[in-house]
Amino acid sequence: MKAEEQAVLTANDAFYTAFSNHDLAGMEQLWSKQHDIAVIHPGWPPLLGRRPVISSWKQILAGGLSSPVSCTNAKVNVLGNVALVICTELLSEAELITTNGFVLEAGDWKMIHHQAGPLPLSNSVAEGDTLH
Amino acid sequence: MKAEEQAVLTANDAFYTAFSNHDLAGMEQLWSKQHDIAVIHPGWPPLLGRRPVISSWKQILAGGLSSPVSCTNAKVNVLGNVALVICTELLSEAELITTNGFVLEAGDWKMIHHQAGPLPLSNSVAEGDTLH
Repeated sequence: MKAEEQAVLTANDAFYTAFSNHDLAGMEQLWSKQHDIAVIHPGWPPLLGRRPVISSWKQILAGGLSSPVSCTNAKVNVLGNVALVICTELLSEAELITTNGFVLEAGDWKMIHHQAGPLPLSNSVAEGDTLH
Repeated sequence: MKAEEQAVLTANDAFYTAFSNHDLAGMEQLWSKQHDIAVIHPGWPPLLGRRPVISSWKQILAGGLSSPVSCTNAKVNVLGNVALVICTELLSEAELITTNGFVLEAGDWKMIHHQAGPLPLSNSVAEGDTLH
């Protein structure tokens, strides 16, 4: 794995550590202050901009998740100063499939994007059982 | 709106035009051949790489969607040569919330990423009714 890919995955891991530790201050640090940011939490409308994004994390981290949130099968795609990570989020209540976006700022990979949605129960795909 | 944002939205519109027209050849042209690409269709496991991505579109476009697929409320975030678009997909069967990723290649914005997932029925967010 290239060093830049490892650096992105380290930032991705830091996100899940802050998530698991209910660490709002850590979460705030992880998100870019220089670029537009957005999150799409499952069951929420999209949230655009720092104020609603951080507010949503405050609400979620205060909600008291019952177990650590981890991320498996992470795949990273580095495109210059931007990177996308796809991974499976393991929560006690569900498994989600996630896109996390990062931008390189002064040597640090900062989050700019997060979309989490339901993962199918099976890894098999049957024809015609999905919208697209 | 800046010219580069408009160019990204034009590429985003072209994606939905190809989708609506069941235009597999057009769809193949829209996706990057120079970078890693990925899609997360609702109800599918993530698909990484050109072969599975294009194969999925072949399957979906052959499935015969009953009406055009359009995209509303598009928000674009341009970060140099990479751009992310969040929009609401309107299908006859459902509304989905989507992240589309693009990379600038020789003057053209090419797709590299697509995640579509369920949109909440209401735009209101009630505390405690979601995982995160």
